Amino acid sequence: MSRQLKLGAFLMVTGHHVAAWRHPDVPANAGLDFAHYKQLARVAEAAKFDALFVADSIAAGTGEVASQMARSDHFEPLTLLSALSAVTEHIGLIATATTSYNEPYHVARKFASLDHLSGGRAGWNLVTSDNAAEALNFGRDEHLGHAERYSRAREFHQVVTGLWDSWDDDAFVRDKASGRYYEPSKRHVLDHVGEHFQVKGPLNVARSPQGQPVIVQAGSSETGRELAAQTAEVVFTAQTSLADAQAFYSDLKARLGQYGREADSLKIMPGVFVVVGQTEALAQAKLEAFQALVEPEVGVALLGRMLGNFDLSGYPLDGPLPELPLTDSGQRSRQQLLSELAQREQLTLAQLGRRIAGGRGHYSVIGTPVQIADELQRWFEEGAADGFNILVPHLPGGLEDFARWVIPELQRRGLFRNEYTGTTLRENLGLARPVSRYKAARS
Amino acid sequence: MSRQLKLGAFLMVTGHHVAAWRHPDVPANAGLDFAHYKQLARVAEAAKFDALFVADSIAAGTGEVASQMARSDHFEPLTLLSALSAVTEHIGLIATATTSYNEPYHVARKFASLDHLSGGRAGWNLVTSDNAAEALNFGRDEHLGHAERYSRAREFHQVVTGLWDSWDDDAFVRDKASGRYYEPSKRHVLDHVGEHFQVKGPLNVARSPQGQPVIVQAGSSETGRELAAQTAEVVFTAQTSLADAQAFYSDLKARLGQYGREADSLKIMPGVFVVVGQTEALAQAKLEAFQALVEPEVGVALLGRMLGNFDLSGYPLDGPLPELPLTDSGQRSRQQLLSELAQREQLTLAQLGRRIAGGRGHYSVIGTPVQIADELQRWFEEGAADGFNILVPHLPGGLEDFARWVIPELQRRGLFRNEYTGTTLRENLGLARPVSRYKAARS
Repeated sequence: MSRQLKLGAFLMVTGHHVAAWRHPDVPANAGLDFAHYKQLARVAEAAKFDALFVADSIAAGTGEVASQMARSDHFEPLTLLSALSAVTEHIGLIATATTSYNEPYHVARKFASLDHLSGGRAGWNLVTSDNAAEALNFGRDEHLGHAERYSRAREFHQVVTGLWDSWDDDAFVRDKASGRYYEPSKRHVLDHVGEHFQVKGPLNVARSPQGQPVIVQAGSSETGRELAAQTAEVVFTAQTSLADAQAFYSDLKARLGQYGREADSLKIMPGVFVVVGQTEALAQAKLEAFQALVEPEVGVALLGRMLGNFDLSGYPLDGPLPELPLTDSGQRSRQQLLSELAQREQLTLAQLGRRIAGGRGHYSVIGTPVQIADELQRWFEEGAADGFNILVPHLPGGLEDFARWVIPELQRRGLFRNEYTGTTLRENLGLARPVSRYKAARS
Repeated sequence: MSRQLKLGAFLMVTGHHVAAWRHPDVPANAGLDFAHYKQLARVAEAAKFDALFVADSIAAGTGEVASQMARSDHFEPLTLLSALSAVTEHIGLIATATTSYNEPYHVARKFASLDHLSGGRAGWNLVTSDNAAEALNFGRDEHLGHAERYSRAREFHQVVTGLWDSWDDDAFVRDKASGRYYEPSKRHVLDHVGEHFQVKGPLNVARSPQGQPVIVQAGSSETGRELAAQTAEVVFTAQTSLADAQAFYSDLKARLGQYGREADSLKIMPGVFVVVGQTEALAQAKLEAFQALVEPEVGVALLGRMLGNFDLSGYPLDGPLPELPLTDSGQRSRQQLLSELAQREQLTLAQLGRRIAGGRGHYSVIGTPVQIADELQRWFEEGAADGFNILVPHLPGGLEDFARWVIPELQRRGLFRNEYTGTTLRENLGLARPVSRYKAARS
């Protein structure tokens, strides 16, 4: 079988478009409606998506603008995906959990538990917090700096994966006759002592169906890329042009060798904001219906947030994007992308805010199913992507549109599966099951 | 309707008896088998139990004896109960989460999320860690002392319940026309600064269906009772005789007044270890089948663990329970209960270990459905209990036995519901929905 692309369905409450909740077709209370998510999961699974992906933040906005966005009331991802594991059978379940304000033992345990609950469908989107407000919920007056966040993330990953290897796959013999429940020689005490963490182990969850849940990342700074090259198995990324995506793709793949990794052991899945219509004009009109619902202040505030928690409310809406310092707490790479976009298209602050309200820095494809499939195919075949994280303006409608119109077109082209071929997320993504570090050391 | 008793189903992997996993009727791999828990939940829900209750520990034992017990591989409770919320409709879902090695924001958020997922069926068993090994998984060399654990627990409770009140019930107006998603005046920023925690808020989950998830506790020390009187809505407790249970019940209820609480606002539910047989002799034989599977070293080790992490392996198996110091890290109250039991019945160390391998310090009732119902009724009517946490030797068999034989007997006596009357756990337990502290302050 020729190489096929991988697809993730990005589920963000009412959709990726910031004004989606105001649209008449969208259930505004989606964030805490389990029936809504159950429907999304079933649509995505019927369409054979590799995974559902749930982003996260551990703070609620309190500014005036926050009160105009559907971002302050939503399920905690691990509880949500655990519930969805009980009503799905095949689709992967990828949740974000920050390394900045968590304990590695809890994270290791919850994802291992989800992997068992789902029969091997868990993925962990390992992030560092880029939202300064989160710090205030965890006893800190100030956000951790970029370098410290990444240093902590790297060690956090070591501890979590170490805990996941606490038990050999065959450690739990459960021999009723002898009374031997587990084989002590197959249990490994981590005894980690590092700069940020001291964690003894072992984990109180057996090695999980996938060996280890799939490691997902989304950092695109220099440090982020290096961490991904060393540790990630899937990378989500925001790229605004084919050329940029190709450069990112080849850069990241080229970094794998120094860690003894094959190019295929890391799947790069750019986010693509997709609006489907039966004609291009209809697709544009569909997008316009959402854009018209964006209050200028909301778009600009979102822009400030994306650029690194800048308050842009003092700048004229019809002026240009102001020069902003490259702060340590922000996401440098994203800031660079957006500045270039604004300059290239000569956008005012309000226009840029409205522009990013849909795709928010991701590549956008607005068109017919054939046009969308063309673009995805081009990126896939021209060295820019192993697959895509599909962002739709509104939910469930945007996902239903994609499943109904774009998936069959991709399948017709042989670019996407007709049936799940694996039983685990790893198998569907074409990722090898990790060998335990203790087995590897012995052999 | 006359007063009816409340029932919780205590789900511990293969059952409450330490040797249950060795019994031929018991699935030894139950700890990580979601189908097993799904069956348990459905049996308990069909029997109209108020709630499932999942205990927890955040460490795995590494001694020789730990390798003979089914205690090192099990689901993390919040992920498990979230999954079960999707396959049940009525039954309450109570999970343990320690205040000793968690962050209040995470705990508040996960339980609020579970309350939304389940339509108002979440309960939080607020504990302090009595297992010193947990400390080593969270960057500490030593376990927190008893006083510090309780001081931290009290403040943890303040923060969590404060976060649960972050939003008034009607804060999320989601008005599509005006673009107002939430009403800023109905959002409350906690801004907690205390001895142990500094947490800003607000929580990023709307106020949950129950207002707040039900608060459950199990401490029985002086400090534990006082915290329960102030903050708990359900108390699980281990009592070995009717007289002790009556004393505990009246003591705890008497403490409520000083906090302005009615006696009925706290439900006391002792654990009862139940073995059901068609005759008393058959019930005894059923228990014997489990007792025979207990290795003496396992029973004694469990005893040491229950008494406060003492290593009793150096003492003669046929000698008496040695005098042990009342340590700060142990559970004083439990130690006292067990010492009295050993002296009263002149038990050797091995005999005491075997004895506690089933009920483990809880009252045990071994007999016919009528005998069991008689005992429960007696405790219920004679001021010892508002209900019970039912501990069965093995799962699913012991729970199926209770549901099939004891529940109908309780229903015949009018002591237990025939149908769920409420839609939330609070309603079924007869607990009022908490008024937000911000509403209370205003009115």
